[in-house]
Amino acid sequence: MSRFFSTKYASLTPYTPGEQPRERKFVKLNTNESPFPPSPLAIAGAAKAAEALHLYSDPTCTPLTARAAEVFGVKPEQLVFTNGSDDALNFAFMAFCDADHPAVFPDITYGFYKVFARLNGVPYEEKPLMEDFSVRVEDYLNCGRTVFLANPNAPTGIALPLSDIEKIAASNPDSVVIIDEAYIDFGGESALPLIDKYDNLLVIQTFSKSRSLAGGRLGMAFGCEALIRDLNTIRYSTNPYNINSMTMAAGVGALEDGAYFRKNCQVIRENRAWTAGELNRLGFAMTDSSANFLFARHPGIPGKELYLALKERGILVRHFDTPRLTDYLRITVGSREQMEILTQTLEELL
Amino acid sequence: MSRFFSTKYASLTPYTPGEQPRERKFVKLNTNESPFPPSPLAIAGAAKAAEALHLYSDPTCTPLTARAAEVFGVKPEQLVFTNGSDDALNFAFMAFCDADHPAVFPDITYGFYKVFARLNGVPYEEKPLMEDFSVRVEDYLNCGRTVFLANPNAPTGIALPLSDIEKIAASNPDSVVIIDEAYIDFGGESALPLIDKYDNLLVIQTFSKSRSLAGGRLGMAFGCEALIRDLNTIRYSTNPYNINSMTMAAGVGALEDGAYFRKNCQVIRENRAWTAGELNRLGFAMTDSSANFLFARHPGIPGKELYLALKERGILVRHFDTPRLTDYLRITVGSREQMEILTQTLEELL
Repeated sequence: MSRFFSTKYASLTPYTPGEQPRERKFVKLNTNESPFPPSPLAIAGAAKAAEALHLYSDPTCTPLTARAAEVFGVKPEQLVFTNGSDDALNFAFMAFCDADHPAVFPDITYGFYKVFARLNGVPYEEKPLMEDFSVRVEDYLNCGRTVFLANPNAPTGIALPLSDIEKIAASNPDSVVIIDEAYIDFGGESALPLIDKYDNLLVIQTFSKSRSLAGGRLGMAFGCEALIRDLNTIRYSTNPYNINSMTMAAGVGALEDGAYFRKNCQVIRENRAWTAGELNRLGFAMTDSSANFLFARHPGIPGKELYLALKERGILVRHFDTPRLTDYLRITVGSREQMEILTQTLEELL
Repeated sequence: MSRFFSTKYASLTPYTPGEQPRERKFVKLNTNESPFPPSPLAIAGAAKAAEALHLYSDPTCTPLTARAAEVFGVKPEQLVFTNGSDDALNFAFMAFCDADHPAVFPDITYGFYKVFARLNGVPYEEKPLMEDFSVRVEDYLNCGRTVFLANPNAPTGIALPLSDIEKIAASNPDSVVIIDEAYIDFGGESALPLIDKYDNLLVIQTFSKSRSLAGGRLGMAFGCEALIRDLNTIRYSTNPYNINSMTMAAGVGALEDGAYFRKNCQVIRENRAWTAGELNRLGFAMTDSSANFLFARHPGIPGKELYLALKERGILVRHFDTPRLTDYLRITVGSREQMEILTQTLEELL
């Protein structure tokens, strides 16, 4: 760091994104991207918007918000768009956490929660997942903290039933409960229908995975109007133009092509089931994933070794080098063809 | 605000973006946008990138950074791209300001500095501009504070000579001096050549104005490698994917079309001179603007009245309703046709 860097960030350890190698063409199963290109409507919308980039994007995101309100069955005032869902998560840490409102989240979950907590000087507690990697719901009941739960969780893929989410929201009426539903479209039950009932519930989703817009950066947060107003106060105090106009148009296109979205989600679920069956046959143990990835370990080969062997053979998966996760690989569920290359390669390796 | 909103932001007043009306087609001279569409190379690059949005954007921005390093004559490690230059400014407030390193900037300047300071809990001092709206350079010499200066300044358009910028950087060796050059391509001298000499100098530019990419959101910061590393620490702790892949591609296209960029800047300078002459003829007083806008007042009509009269006639300009600025209008310099509509309308009004 430079000698000018504020000491408040001296111990900050930034998030490490998944590898995005450029030197070689990989079968890329490491960052939970969709194997399907965006909807043609999204592509066309973005291309059209590119012609008018000399004008600022609309900070109110009015057409996109209107379309999303229809699709998700909420009022426009109950949602806000962000520059990827990371932006929404960071805003939530800013708005709803401080020394008096510490955060709580599982010890094994999306790695960015801890970074956001440190960035914002927020005290936080990590609750260990149970032995089988499931969330111990009791840890979050009446906890008096701002709760962050990824549902389904990452990198385990395990989903909590909606009844548990509701219990957590109901038992913490004075704390915001943030449910990060980045992977909800591949399984699990969204907590979105509960936002009218619980004024402390914030639901965060993304267009990155199920709507094939990872490179466009579009996330959204849903909650009661007052929570959304708070997030907008933060948004208008950091970057009111946080969404560029091409991504806004791509988002409208993606929402309009509901059939394409549903078909792609269905294919991913089928490919997940097929791949899980194959991995099972090859001796892997897996969590019960509701996401677009599998979390798998082989009793015979350490995770890191397998990760490196796959990489050498042109397949990228994600390995987390931490004690409880080191045996595992997180493998994105891609196209059937990608999954066949993966399982054939594993078969040769084992 | 909701009952959950952190008290640390209780007094936060967000930035107010310029009007972006949707209900009527205006001659839009209120947000300093370029009247020219992006370069065809930028449009084509963005449209192509839209086809692969299912993949994450490259957090290292490698091709864009390489191209920019060539164009601007710096090392790739001396620059970082941000989601508009607002993102770079906010990162600078985060990284280089705190209770021990308060900020200082003019009382009349880009309105977001004050918002960023408050957002980040940074003490700040506003130094009054002189009667003629110029910056009193002495206010920033040996000041021991993190300096933020827009050059040319907004909404006045007045530029400081490079020798003054250098004096300020040289006299504050233990504080970062941030020069916000959003408008530098329309006049004034960039401080970019000084970043090798002063390790405390950060130069911020944007693709929004002179490169016609306001809707794409692309800003950049230049400085010594250590300063840029600090900004990247913040970037990787907030949103490593802050630039979407379409905007990255548009940025490469815009940089490749240097001839288009230079021609457009030249036309704006010519239109500025022409418009200033016309406004002068109509009795307006103006600052000496080096930016793509004019800052003008008419002795006969209060600024707000003129703003409203123009709006009624389909022309949007910006009026700031604060004591020292209330007589003035900030008028974007657009195409010659737009400028003719403006001056004809003013002639009818007066």
